[in-house]
Amino acid sequence: MPKRNRNSAILLIHCPDNKGIVAQVTGFINDNNGNIIALDEHVDRLDKVFYMRIEWELDGFLIPQEKIADFFSTLIAARYNMTWNIYFSDRRPRMAIFVSKLSHCLYDILSRVHAGEFGADIPLIIGNHHDLEPVARQFSIPFYYSEKNEDNRLQQEVRELELLKQHQVTFVVLARYMQILSSHFISQYPNEIINIHHSFLPAFPGAKPYHSAYERGVKIIGATSHYVTSELDAGPIIDQDIVRVSHRDSIDRLILKGKDVEKLVLSRAILMHLQRRTLVYNNRTVVFN
Amino acid sequence: MPKRNRNSAILLIHCPDNKGIVAQVTGFINDNNGNIIALDEHVDRLDKVFYMRIEWELDGFLIPQEKIADFFSTLIAARYNMTWNIYFSDRRPRMAIFVSKLSHCLYDILSRVHAGEFGADIPLIIGNHHDLEPVARQFSIPFYYSEKNEDNRLQQEVRELELLKQHQVTFVVLARYMQILSSHFISQYPNEIINIHHSFLPAFPGAKPYHSAYERGVKIIGATSHYVTSELDAGPIIDQDIVRVSHRDSIDRLILKGKDVEKLVLSRAILMHLQRRTLVYNNRTVVFN
Amino acid sequence: MPKRNRNSAILLIHCPDNKGIVAQVTGFINDNNGNIIALDEHVDRLDKVFYMRIEWELDGFLIPQEKIADFFSTLIAARYNMTWNIYFSDRRPRMAIFVSKLSHCLYDILSRVHAGEFGADIPLIIGNHHDLEPVARQFSIPFYYSEKNEDNRLQQEVRELELLKQHQVTFVVLARYMQILSSHFISQYPNEIINIHHSFLPAFPGAKPYHSAYERGVKIIGATSHYVTSELDAGPIIDQDIVRVSHRDSIDRLILKGKDVEKLVLSRAILMHLQRRTLVYNNRTVVFN
Amino acid sequence: MPKRNRNSAILLIHCPDNKGIVAQVTGFINDNNGNIIALDEHVDRLDKVFYMRIEWELDGFLIPQEKIADFFSTLIAARYNMTWNIYFSDRRPRMAIFVSKLSHCLYDILSRVHAGEFGADIPLIIGNHHDLEPVARQFSIPFYYSEKNEDNRLQQEVRELELLKQHQVTFVVLARYMQILSSHFISQYPNEIINIHHSFLPAFPGAKPYHSAYERGVKIIGATSHYVTSELDAGPIIDQDIVRVSHRDSIDRLILKGKDVEKLVLSRAILMHLQRRTLVYNNRTVVFN
Repeated sequence: MPKRNRNSAILLIHCPDNKGIVAQVTGFINDNNGNIIALDEHVDRLDKVFYMRIEWELDGFLIPQEKIADFFSTLIAARYNMTWNIYFSDRRPRMAIFVSKLSHCLYDILSRVHAGEFGADIPLIIGNHHDLEPVARQFSIPFYYSEKNEDNRLQQEVRELELLKQHQVTFVVLARYMQILSSHFISQYPNEIINIHHSFLPAFPGAKPYHSAYERGVKIIGATSHYVTSELDAGPIIDQDIVRVSHRDSIDRLILKGKDVEKLVLSRAILMHLQRRTLVYNNRTVVFN
Repeated sequence: MPKRNRNSAILLIHCPDNKGIVAQVTGFINDNNGNIIALDEHVDRLDKVFYMRIEWELDGFLIPQEKIADFFSTLIAARYNMTWNIYFSDRRPRMAIFVSKLSHCLYDILSRVHAGEFGADIPLIIGNHHDLEPVARQFSIPFYYSEKNEDNRLQQEVRELELLKQHQVTFVVLARYMQILSSHFISQYPNEIINIHHSFLPAFPGAKPYHSAYERGVKIIGATSHYVTSELDAGPIIDQDIVRVSHRDSIDRLILKGKDVEKLVLSRAILMHLQRRTLVYNNRTVVFN
Repeated sequence: MPKRNRNSAILLIHCPDNKGIVAQVTGFINDNNGNIIALDEHVDRLDKVFYMRIEWELDGFLIPQEKIADFFSTLIAARYNMTWNIYFSDRRPRMAIFVSKLSHCLYDILSRVHAGEFGADIPLIIGNHHDLEPVARQFSIPFYYSEKNEDNRLQQEVRELELLKQHQVTFVVLARYMQILSSHFISQYPNEIINIHHSFLPAFPGAKPYHSAYERGVKIIGATSHYVTSELDAGPIIDQDIVRVSHRDSIDRLILKGKDVEKLVLSRAILMHLQRRTLVYNNRTVVFN
Repeated sequence: MPKRNRNSAILLIHCPDNKGIVAQVTGFINDNNGNIIALDEHVDRLDKVFYMRIEWELDGFLIPQEKIADFFSTLIAARYNMTWNIYFSDRRPRMAIFVSKLSHCLYDILSRVHAGEFGADIPLIIGNHHDLEPVARQFSIPFYYSEKNEDNRLQQEVRELELLKQHQVTFVVLARYMQILSSHFISQYPNEIINIHHSFLPAFPGAKPYHSAYERGVKIIGATSHYVTSELDAGPIIDQDIVRVSHRDSIDRLILKGKDVEKLVLSRAILMHLQRRTLVYNNRTVVFN
């Protein structure tokens, strides 16, 4: 991961495709003395949508950081009908992790934070079981137990949302969290909730995908990280990967092999999200990696 | 592929799991002076089924080739309630290829036959379009045009089955053949018809999987080779593979990348089938590779 | 592969990194009414080199096709010290294929040309053995036999270079050609000769890599496509891929599995080269895919 | 991973290939009322070596556990000139981990132990730096600091070997341990020391493989787990895997991507070793998975 010694800005844009957008945006940064350190663009020719990620150093940039959004909006975004967001590297994202009983994804995330791979803070972990409370304690992260059942779900979500606000959480990771979130909850963090599903979607959505995979006799299993939308396991995919299996693999071995894929695919999605390399449009994810 | 200088026998077995089967089968071969050159076994502990593939050299084997089946049946198979088949390497399989318009799988198969990778003969190619007739001609293989529509389907299949019998075809390969075969046709070649489907099943069965994959925004696409059963795209899977894609890939590029996976996954399945490394049970395929 | 209904230009550039290059180049195209249909750029921060590939439609472009190079050179390239090339989609590349005895790569290439995957002509095939002459004949491509030994190598190369010139060959593919080309030959086609080496370089350069792989007991084998330079198997890598192997794989099976990787890795490199997606600098290849 | 409710025995064998070995070994177990639950065999036809792994339930086996070795040795092993080992599932392996500064492999191992994936105890961690002492403390495992330099190496190894004996360590894992062990140390744990090297060997042995990979411009990077022998990075390979990279990946990103491969490849090797699925012969590893 590139070291960021200096503060930089990242602009994520999508808009109807048009001539001259790249020249305009790079001109805006260039003319104000910004040094572009990364530029990715993509044109979806079918839907005629333009996507861009551009990152530049703020050191010496002529527009003060707090005014960049306003200037960009007025001078560029408005005339191209852009949907856009700007991020600054000196604002560290704050990630909440939701867990149930399985520890492999949680450990993978926490060990990366420890190693400095993720430039993010984890102010809290929320679990609907007590199983992973000791893991949270190992890493000195506050753990909140939030038991859920058919009756108390919405009520508990209210409390969880309060906790997230209280801890200024900017995005949420569901690390093999075996509960469905309500549409209301999801609407509070649009494209800011990342889930890992333990199959190569759209194959085997829903519960027990490894059992279904075994039953179907597939020769590959996989995992899918995606942004959560109100439709179950149908949100925009960020990353997927697979591993080969054979008749020798029992369901237990499928689960074991699958866990390795799950944790990598989830952690890679978190990294892409943290580095602001993802752009969602039409239920698909552009990942500039 | 190992050269087979001498004639060998391959026995494929499945039966209820039981103590002593391996000892019995290897004893049968050993006691009759057979030199075992490959042995693979697998026990499905969930369903309690035993699977075995055993290959031995016939040179010096005390039971004459034409009597092996009878002896094995009486001495071993009967008492373990075995389902089994025996194959001899001096009997070359005869493969019929069904095609439509796309040439990549056909070329891949024919170039392997040319290179001696497949120990099989191809007495005929059947197409429901004329497009690949020139390819058949390049390799001097008889091409039969068999146009199909809603009305003449069953009638045409009768003629096709006659052609297959006439050419002593032992198994059939559907090389991106875009027609559905009737249950009757399939029943004539149980677990002897191999199809390639252009997605990682069970994702995207049916028509236009690449369009669906694009629409869903997946990050991997794939292909699946399977034995054909009367349920569409639901037969026992022989092999699968995938390739990574990204937002940069248009539908045309998905199709292009997918073709590479399709041809490899189909040809690998043919090789496994030719080498008698596949065993079907409960709609799953054991592949001893 | 995207269909190109209209003529387009592709510009490949590398130069010392500098502020404003993207804005200048996109401005040049934009101001002259060119519609940019693809833009990729990369900055090597270690060596401070800027790389760019930009493609735009020539329909309506205000500078006539034959003057674009001159204008670009004067107005842009000179002031940024650019190394650059321009290609037009209405000029079809002409590919010569060099072969020895193995047919798998040759068939893979020819079947892609047949399927329209490669927008290129193949005016001739040159072989140092007669083995693949029938394959050339199948596809009605002139085959030249050019036997080589220690004594006549340079002499034969003179004749081969004449043949290439005569057939207006723009680039050369070594499709498992088992002869070493002289520095003089290579210098005539700098970064225009693509070779496939049957190992994941830098492991196992030179002869018999599968035997060495077997000997070393590796668990993966692979293939590497690269531009040929005067140092054997050390040219800039275009693509690599691998396949898993195990103790079950004899050398013959390694060779068989390897062939599948070889042909794909070579054909993908050819496609990248044909689409002008490759840029060589410092013995490394930028591949904009 | 299969649950082992009952005690089982695993026999690992290699010997000159011969007729009847499988029948003899399975007969020995069968005749004494053992229920075979797994059987894998392999014949290296080039070197004419026979390899076998066989596992059976001890419940009801007629030979007492402590006498099995003696009986097998006398009745079977001696007459086939076998090299063999027997393991019992009720004897838990004891693993020592050697570390330096990087935590990713260590966390991956410890999180698997936590999840019950490894049926092993970790009595101690030895580090030549203090960096990972806090990680050991998180998991309540004794950490021993063993600083090493040119002068004190052998002396320190004496102390380390004492620690291993004291803790009844049965095998050693080098989890990105950046020190070379002496031949004497290695000879104390033949084929019982597993190392992870951060390249796809034999490419890039020695120090700084990611820097070399970047320099060479490879399109894949990888990792190799192997048993340690006295020749550096040349021991028998247990597992390898790779990840695709591109010109976009700086050395820092290569290192980051590589870490994911390293930890999986090391942990998979440990699992294979723990399940007694590995057999070393002629500097190659048979892995029955």
